Amino acid sequence: MREITAKLPNANIIYFGDTARVPYGEKSPDTIVRYALESGTFLQEKGVDIIVIACNTASAFAIDALRERFSVPVLAVIEPGAKRAVETTTDGHIAVIGTRGTISSGVYEKAIIKLMPEAKVTALACPLFVPIVEEGFESHAVADLIVNEYLGSIKEKGIDTLLLGCTHYPLLKPMIKKVLGEKIAIVDSAGSCAEGVFEECSRLNVSNPLEHHLPAVHQFYVSDDPVRFKVLGERFLKHPITSIEKVSLEASLTLSY
Amino acid sequence: MREITAKLPNANIIYFGDTARVPYGEKSPDTIVRYALESGTFLQEKGVDIIVIACNTASAFAIDALRERFSVPVLAVIEPGAKRAVETTTDGHIAVIGTRGTISSGVYEKAIIKLMPEAKVTALACPLFVPIVEEGFESHAVADLIVNEYLGSIKEKGIDTLLLGCTHYPLLKPMIKKVLGEKIAIVDSAGSCAEGVFEECSRLNVSNPLEHHLPAVHQFYVSDDPVRFKVLGERFLKHPITSIEKVSLEASLTLSY
Repeated sequence: MREITAKLPNANIIYFGDTARVPYGEKSPDTIVRYALESGTFLQEKGVDIIVIACNTASAFAIDALRERFSVPVLAVIEPGAKRAVETTTDGHIAVIGTRGTISSGVYEKAIIKLMPEAKVTALACPLFVPIVEEGFESHAVADLIVNEYLGSIKEKGIDTLLLGCTHYPLLKPMIKKVLGEKIAIVDSAGSCAEGVFEECSRLNVSNPLEHHLPAVHQFYVSDDPVRFKVLGERFLKHPITSIEKVSLEASLTLSY
Repeated sequence: MREITAKLPNANIIYFGDTARVPYGEKSPDTIVRYALESGTFLQEKGVDIIVIACNTASAFAIDALRERFSVPVLAVIEPGAKRAVETTTDGHIAVIGTRGTISSGVYEKAIIKLMPEAKVTALACPLFVPIVEEGFESHAVADLIVNEYLGSIKEKGIDTLLLGCTHYPLLKPMIKKVLGEKIAIVDSAGSCAEGVFEECSRLNVSNPLEHHLPAVHQFYVSDDPVRFKVLGERFLKHPITSIEKVSLEASLTLSY
């Protein structure tokens, strides 16, 4: 959201966060596909031009289901992340970290190998990174110890690039850099994903930043208490969230299924 | 479940775990009430004699809604935990730890003060304890650091009893004991809750352990992948889980609302 806003400052954006059912990281593929279809249905009913799955676990399991189901273009964060990692790597040895779901799916290995068949990919689940960030402990000694626990061993594996395959992980970047040192490049999918959205908008001829003169509308929807979301959301976005509404996805599901 | 099984070895038990939507600890009261009503509806439709809310956060917010809605007796873990703490305390200074939801609800303070008006209660949220246990890190240096972070300061407050107000926390008991020392008693609600179930069964004249001769049936239902649940569930129960089935709560909701 933050990178898309930077790249397309005049685009109207509808954000939906399924806060009543997160985290997705440990849930099963079937459940994640179902949740992603419900979220996508909500967004499609709002009349959006493009749907972006801005969650790595949902992207990993639900991209095909959403592309099959919806008529609007569906972008995800896996291919952009893989693209950025391949552009960055010097020796072709890339590590990917993410939730247990994302890593077990193997989608990042596939996406990287597709772009760079000679790449060597090391994939690693870091299940405690999300709770650490949500608790605001990203600069705490606890984060230092946990980052060392998960990533200490990959330092010696000769990787040159680390891909952060989860939306929460960029907040841990300073700590990860401290543990891994300056020689390993740390990349994420956000910038590359925003470029993809920009290109798609140009292709569809929507949200052209040069043609809009009205202030962009950013409307946030969540499935649980908006106040709790606002606090965490503003830490990620680094700007105030003014318009948030709670919606019941399960109720809308009842009507549309 | 483990304590109830120990106390009532011949009782048939239906367990429902809302694994597609856990953890509840950070979710809003409204959402937790809705989820608890859906879980309770599922159990009631199975024809149970008693419903036990074996989750502290759900107990904290949903006990009244469930008692109002269902005709069978609804037991929870708050009052039994408070009872056990009051029975244990020597100086009347009790600390309670739980999820952010449970602690913010203030139910434990109320329940303890009701039983022991002169008690002094210190309540503290420990949001990282659940993910630490789920990750199997309860004996790890990470757990040591996090337990110290949350509980280090209460050592000096003169408490004599610590009440574990979350089902996951008993797995951290050895680490908590290490941090707090031998002088502070550590109690949880499970044993006291099982006693309450035993008494209720006697009152209703169901599941009398002396009258049953067939092996007890323990049937597990979850809302997400049973295989993932089995691994974690067996760590808590300390015996094999043989019968698990996945059910869709949202679908049954559609029919019954």
